[in-house]
Amino acid sequence: MRFDVLTLFPEIIESYCGVSIMKRAKEGEVFSLNTVNPRDYTEDKHKKVDDTPYGGGAGMVLMPQPYVDAYDSVEKLENSITVMLSPQGEPLNEKLVIDLAQYSQIIMLCGHYEGFDERIRDIIKPKEISVGDFVLTGGELPALCLIDAVSRKLNGTLGRRESAEDDSFSNGLLEYPHYTKPRDFRGYKVPEVLLNGNHKDINEFRFNQQLERTKIKRPDLYEKYIKKADL
Amino acid sequence: MRFDVLTLFPEIIESYCGVSIMKRAKEGEVFSLNTVNPRDYTEDKHKKVDDTPYGGGAGMVLMPQPYVDAYDSVEKLENSITVMLSPQGEPLNEKLVIDLAQYSQIIMLCGHYEGFDERIRDIIKPKEISVGDFVLTGGELPALCLIDAVSRKLNGTLGRRESAEDDSFSNGLLEYPHYTKPRDFRGYKVPEVLLNGNHKDINEFRFNQQLERTKIKRPDLYEKYIKKADL
Repeated sequence: MRFDVLTLFPEIIESYCGVSIMKRAKEGEVFSLNTVNPRDYTEDKHKKVDDTPYGGGAGMVLMPQPYVDAYDSVEKLENSITVMLSPQGEPLNEKLVIDLAQYSQIIMLCGHYEGFDERIRDIIKPKEISVGDFVLTGGELPALCLIDAVSRKLNGTLGRRESAEDDSFSNGLLEYPHYTKPRDFRGYKVPEVLLNGNHKDINEFRFNQQLERTKIKRPDLYEKYIKKADL
Repeated sequence: MRFDVLTLFPEIIESYCGVSIMKRAKEGEVFSLNTVNPRDYTEDKHKKVDDTPYGGGAGMVLMPQPYVDAYDSVEKLENSITVMLSPQGEPLNEKLVIDLAQYSQIIMLCGHYEGFDERIRDIIKPKEISVGDFVLTGGELPALCLIDAVSRKLNGTLGRRESAEDDSFSNGLLEYPHYTKPRDFRGYKVPEVLLNGNHKDINEFRFNQQLERTKIKRPDLYEKYIKKADL
C-alpha cells in the first residue's frame, strides 16, 4: 500500500507514522508514505495557499491552483483511489476501511482553515470521507485515522502482540471485556469463568457479554445484528 | 480549559498540539495540555503495562495498576470530566463537542494494543466516547480529534482567518461551497452570483446549496433538518 497525503502540515502526518505500530509497519514496508505540501506548488510570489471567499464571509478558502498542481504531481499507481477528508463525506466505518485496504494507493487531500475552493472537488473528483459529524481544524487527523485503520488490515502490520480478529465491529458487535493480571485489583476480581480453562464456557461468557454491552451501549448495532442473525 | 491525557505515547499528543492553530491556542493560554504516561507508574520491574488476557485469545491487555495509579496522580479541578476513547463509546458529534467545551478540565484515557482491563472502567467510570465505527491502534487520534474540536469552541482559538459560524453542522446542514481566486481556473468559473455583491442573492444561493448538498450527501441530516424546520 502506498499512502500519498497532500497537506500544509506534513510534519503532523510524518510524526504520527514514526511511532509505535505505524513505525514498525512502515519500516517493514507494509506501506509507504509520501507527503506533498501544496505550498511548494503555489505560483503566488508570497507562497500564499488561501485567500478570502468570493461573496464575503469569515475565514479563508484554499485556492485551487496549489492543490490541483500538487495533486497532478503525484504519481498515480494502477488501482489508486483519491480521498478528500471532509465533514461532508461518507462516514468512515469498518466496511469502508476494508474496501480501502484493497487499493494499492490511497491519495488523500487534507484541508485546513475554512475549506477547499469548490473547483478542487470539481476537477479532482475525490471520494469524500468523514470521520464524524464534528468539525476539525484540518483533514490531517482524519487522514491519520484512515491510514491507521487501513494499515491494521494489511498483512504484517499487527504482530504477535496485537490482533484484529476480536476487535469491536469484527462480527458486528462491540468487544467483550478483557482481563489481565492481577486476579484481584483493589478488590475487583477477574470473573471466575475466565480462570477455569473451559473454552466452551469462556466463549459463551464472552459472546453473551458482547451481546449485552452492544444492546446497552449501541442499540443501533444490536438491532442490525439481531436482524441479520435472525435471533 | 485543561486537557490531561493518559497515554503510552505522549509524543503523539504533544507534537500535534505544537503545530498550527493548536500551537497558537496553547501559547495563547486558551488551553493547557498535560500528558501522563502510565508506564511511569507501573510497579512491574520490567516497566510492563500490558499482559496476556485471562481466558486466552490473541493480543495484549492493558493492566489496571499503571492506568489507575496514573489516573489517581492527576489533579482534578472542579467541573472536570473523564473520558475514555473507545470504539464502544457514544459517537462524538458537534452537540457533544459543545457540551464538553463547558467543562474546565477533560481527562482522557487512551488505550493501545488490544484494550483496557475491564476494571479500569469499573474503577474510574469514565464517559466513553468514540470517533466512529472503525478500529484504531490506540486512543491517541480520537483524543486529538476531541482536543481539536473542543478547542475550536473556546474563545481565542480561532483568529481572524478562521471562523466556526459557517462550519458544517453549525445549523444542522453541510457547508455551502466556497470560492476564492482566481475567477477562472482551468475553465472552471466562480458562480456569477458571488461576484455581483448582492447579499440577499448570495445568502439565498448559499442556503440553497446547503440544502441541496445535504439532501444528496447526507439524507439523514436533511430529514432531521426538514422535520425540525417544518418545511
